[in-house]
Amino acid sequence: MSWERNIRRVVPYTPGEQTNKKVIKINTNECPYPPAPGVEKALKELNYESLRLYPKPAADDLVNAIAKYYGKKSSQVFVGVGSDDVISMTFLAYFNSDKPVLFPDVTYSFYDVWADVYRIPYEKQALDDNFRIKPEDYYKENGGIIFPNPNAPTGIYESLDMIEDIVKHNPDSVVIIDEAYIDFGGKSALALTDKYENLLVVQTFSKSRAMAGMRIGFAIGSEKLIKYLNDVKYSVNSYTMNTPSLVVGPIAIEDDAYFKETTGKIIKTREWMKKELKALGFTFPDSMSNFIFATHKDYDAKELLKYLRENKILVRHFKGERVKDYLRISVGTDEQAEALMEALKKKIK
Amino acid sequence: MSWERNIRRVVPYTPGEQTNKKVIKINTNECPYPPAPGVEKALKELNYESLRLYPKPAADDLVNAIAKYYGKKSSQVFVGVGSDDVISMTFLAYFNSDKPVLFPDVTYSFYDVWADVYRIPYEKQALDDNFRIKPEDYYKENGGIIFPNPNAPTGIYESLDMIEDIVKHNPDSVVIIDEAYIDFGGKSALALTDKYENLLVVQTFSKSRAMAGMRIGFAIGSEKLIKYLNDVKYSVNSYTMNTPSLVVGPIAIEDDAYFKETTGKIIKTREWMKKELKALGFTFPDSMSNFIFATHKDYDAKELLKYLRENKILVRHFKGERVKDYLRISVGTDEQAEALMEALKKKIK
Repeated sequence: MSWERNIRRVVPYTPGEQTNKKVIKINTNECPYPPAPGVEKALKELNYESLRLYPKPAADDLVNAIAKYYGKKSSQVFVGVGSDDVISMTFLAYFNSDKPVLFPDVTYSFYDVWADVYRIPYEKQALDDNFRIKPEDYYKENGGIIFPNPNAPTGIYESLDMIEDIVKHNPDSVVIIDEAYIDFGGKSALALTDKYENLLVVQTFSKSRAMAGMRIGFAIGSEKLIKYLNDVKYSVNSYTMNTPSLVVGPIAIEDDAYFKETTGKIIKTREWMKKELKALGFTFPDSMSNFIFATHKDYDAKELLKYLRENKILVRHFKGERVKDYLRISVGTDEQAEALMEALKKKIK
Repeated sequence: MSWERNIRRVVPYTPGEQTNKKVIKINTNECPYPPAPGVEKALKELNYESLRLYPKPAADDLVNAIAKYYGKKSSQVFVGVGSDDVISMTFLAYFNSDKPVLFPDVTYSFYDVWADVYRIPYEKQALDDNFRIKPEDYYKENGGIIFPNPNAPTGIYESLDMIEDIVKHNPDSVVIIDEAYIDFGGKSALALTDKYENLLVVQTFSKSRAMAGMRIGFAIGSEKLIKYLNDVKYSVNSYTMNTPSLVVGPIAIEDDAYFKETTGKIIKTREWMKKELKALGFTFPDSMSNFIFATHKDYDAKELLKYLRENKILVRHFKGERVKDYLRISVGTDEQAEALMEALKKKIK
């Protein structure tokens, strides 16, 4: 049929599996603990009649709560439907150039999908043999730079000095640091956003704030960057954040004690998992995230994936040449981590 | 600063005003009645612990409920964050051509914004002097066609015969009928989607289903069209619909009695408003939507807008040359409509 000639053909990103089955679900880096307790109360008390009305398009309450928590102006904060929505809009807003956008070869596998859908040229920069970023790869001319810190799926955290070095070398591009996993031990580049007008930091409520189901992500940067991003948002969808998100988002961000308690527990479980995995002969980059990217010299990753699945434990495997021998294992509760280790011990002699 | 050279400059859409103030808010075509009663119960019973998990990316429950209600296959249904999100993605997915997309000169003012942000050429087709679509304007070569039925902000409903005529003339383009206001008396083009593979119908929960605050829109078309749209969606954001939306959406769609009762009341109030406005000397196209697009030969629209605002009644005014003498007045409750008429009677002698 000839109407198909005008279709934008794309190869979409494949999200990790979601399931209602009773399994140990450590495949999509969700928080194993529920959201802050105030969220439950707020949902129960939500004025359902207000749902007939459009939400505030600027998402004021949520934007203000995030700005206050991070000590920024509200005009420096942008919110979206998860950090995927935020980053998708940054590709559209900031990477409007014929020069290639740069990001690592082993990284969040959505970057090249966004570049493809928006027809943005890009050039992957190979990580070194230890999966580390080589900053000098980002000194060349480019149409923008993005990478996660800690990186995904490796979990490796790079220092703020390295990030500042890359930003300094790129006054002519927007540099985006995707900090989906920053709350599990790393230092945020938010400290640098007041110094560099072209640096944007993206974070999410889906991991450390235990609200993947609410779809809340945000970006912080200079007022200019945020203004350009909002212009694109208002050119795509006036009302991205629904009323429940606007009601519970501020509550999640304001309960700092609960946030510190749960991220602290996850870090503790992660360190225990590292010891146990090592004892079983796994090797992995030292993770500062809520997952461990592990490989075993004697066992095939896909075989382990299958074995764990048969034992009702879901982990994630990626197909790329450099990562196909690895499993990405989310940090769960202590009980989930123990069940994983027990299952692995039966397999790995 | 030279990083700004890569910025996509756009002129965004301006949404209608949202406010917490105590006013008669008939400016953004919201439903004056609350959502279906089951929505309240479902929100109170929502399993808040589940919010730590990602929602189902395919939004299965919601998609299935919509498919069942309209007698379609689930593979013929696409959902998004309001119909704005849905239509934004249709522009990206279907209008990937050098030929101009066609839409009326007086219509939803987001169409040219989407075309601009995605760099899609377009050509506005002038409505006739009575704000009617001239079908022959849509016979020429094009990269796609979109218009609302009933049209916004005129409220005019065009027959399915006219729509079928336009679709028949355009086997080489995707034709999108934006039916945000179809439930207030018109016949949906859904009846034609099984016959024409290139016809997509978009609807929303924001008006007739009283859930603007939940951000739910959907599209129905051939399996092929929906597949292409999902490919783009999964290239932009895997999880657009949050858990509360997925929980309450199906409840709203299943309560057909409540839906018919509230849309019936709105139609009744609209017909009363037409009589009253006419008696006051207003003229307007005959609306089949939940708003009336009215002008008065002796009173300036902007002056009336200001006067109503001073009397705590918000209506909408658009700046375009052909529409600047009109006010778009949403149909509210009987009480709101009466208050509007009382205020107007004081002004219009």
